Amino acid sequence: MTDYFTEEGSVETVNARMGDDIDPRLKTVMGALVKHLHAFAKEVELTQEEWDFGIDFLTQTGQICSPERQEFILLSDVLGFSMLVDAINNRRPAGATENTVFGPFHVANAPIRKMGDNICLDGKGESCLFTGRVIDIHGEPIKGACVDVWSDNAEGFYDVQQPDIQPKFNNRGRFITEADGAYSFVGIKPVSYPIPDDGPVGKMLGQLGRHPYRPAHMHFMVTAPGFRTIVTHTFVGDDRYLNDDSVFGVKETLVAPFEHVKAETEWRSPFDFVMVAE
Amino acid sequence: MTDYFTEEGSVETVNARMGDDIDPRLKTVMGALVKHLHAFAKEVELTQEEWDFGIDFLTQTGQICSPERQEFILLSDVLGFSMLVDAINNRRPAGATENTVFGPFHVANAPIRKMGDNICLDGKGESCLFTGRVIDIHGEPIKGACVDVWSDNAEGFYDVQQPDIQPKFNNRGRFITEADGAYSFVGIKPVSYPIPDDGPVGKMLGQLGRHPYRPAHMHFMVTAPGFRTIVTHTFVGDDRYLNDDSVFGVKETLVAPFEHVKAETEWRSPFDFVMVAE
Repeated sequence: MTDYFTEEGSVETVNARMGDDIDPRLKTVMGALVKHLHAFAKEVELTQEEWDFGIDFLTQTGQICSPERQEFILLSDVLGFSMLVDAINNRRPAGATENTVFGPFHVANAPIRKMGDNICLDGKGESCLFTGRVIDIHGEPIKGACVDVWSDNAEGFYDVQQPDIQPKFNNRGRFITEADGAYSFVGIKPVSYPIPDDGPVGKMLGQLGRHPYRPAHMHFMVTAPGFRTIVTHTFVGDDRYLNDDSVFGVKETLVAPFEHVKAETEWRSPFDFVMVAE
Repeated sequence: MTDYFTEEGSVETVNARMGDDIDPRLKTVMGALVKHLHAFAKEVELTQEEWDFGIDFLTQTGQICSPERQEFILLSDVLGFSMLVDAINNRRPAGATENTVFGPFHVANAPIRKMGDNICLDGKGESCLFTGRVIDIHGEPIKGACVDVWSDNAEGFYDVQQPDIQPKFNNRGRFITEADGAYSFVGIKPVSYPIPDDGPVGKMLGQLGRHPYRPAHMHFMVTAPGFRTIVTHTFVGDDRYLNDDSVFGVKETLVAPFEHVKAETEWRSPFDFVMVAE
């Protein structure tokens, strides 16, 4: 009896090599990965030259990664893989706020601020009042929820992308709800921006006839004891890239009103977050 | 009309983004890649933690690559993907010599030697006479074929893995056939060896309950004008890893006789190469 490799039996031969006493979940995941990767090569009859190109692409993608840059996450994002994993792991009942991609620009432990505070510390951009409530699926307000928010600045950069520019924590903050579940803060109406496109993933997007832009959005991470964490954005509804987000983050329910008010702030964006119990 | 991302429609949404006037083959290959990658994530319901681990694994694999080391080829090899691509691209009629993986240790322009020459320059290992003919599918000898050969040394290393150790081109050489198509040279009976297993791929093999060894083999690349190139190995039939090659390179037809002769050489390995016209 041999288990020599054949084109037809490639998946079975490779997967039969896994040990009997390995982690069962690892066995399931790797077995499926081999199955689907081989099915891909067989379907397109991948040429040797194409696979050489693929090896080179993966190598370049790994080599451009640094503490400040994660090109494989970018690759996962533009292939819709990040959104798919997020969707699989965050299925929620109708009416609950949907998740979207976390993105690479969150900073843990941003300052805790008072309701109504302004998180835009550089004074640039069109001011916007973000306001709403954190409630459960029955409409009851949630006390003690943490609303962690972050956005780009008026030029389309997150503060961590411009580490030499002060002030720190520009356009970031955390807000803790009281018994009414209400939150409010002043930021800027976010602007659309390109994901970093000067590396292999940007080059790939170009070859695919795709642009690197994301529609304008405000990031929210909402946590509360006893509830499933919401990681999401709200999107500016009139953005030209709304139907064409380079990382596929937009969902219908996350497009928020941005009302031109010209009062104390130029804009007002009301949005309620509906949490599901754990 | 929107094309917002949904778990169900993920593949269609991502693939619809490709431009209309891009390279058609690129469109086919990338469309299939997205389809199969998404099918993988859906089948196993990949968790966020698992994908974070995957991103980190890919990053480490890219970062360990250097001019002397190609960890993504190693990954492709141990997943059977290299052998699959080779098989898809080198389907041949019955009776023709089969291909197997090229491997990372070939050196272009090894010295051209005379038939019968000894390529083992360090005098270590069990000597073996390799002999046979290069013929076409009808059994006719091929004149002017180049038989390019390379193997590890008695310690299981290729010369390029030990760049500080002389002589250069140890266990390498090229031989050009005359009208009879015959070739012969003296080398060593190759020994089994582990693929480099001190990086992320080696760690993965360990988690999968797999060892890193390859069965002993002599590399051959046979080229001749008007014929399809053969890239293959011959395997030593009594090797303990013959049924368990870490990169799946063994094929039934490539297991060669290694006869213990104790004449001028200790071993003799006859093998004919059967080429297919282009």
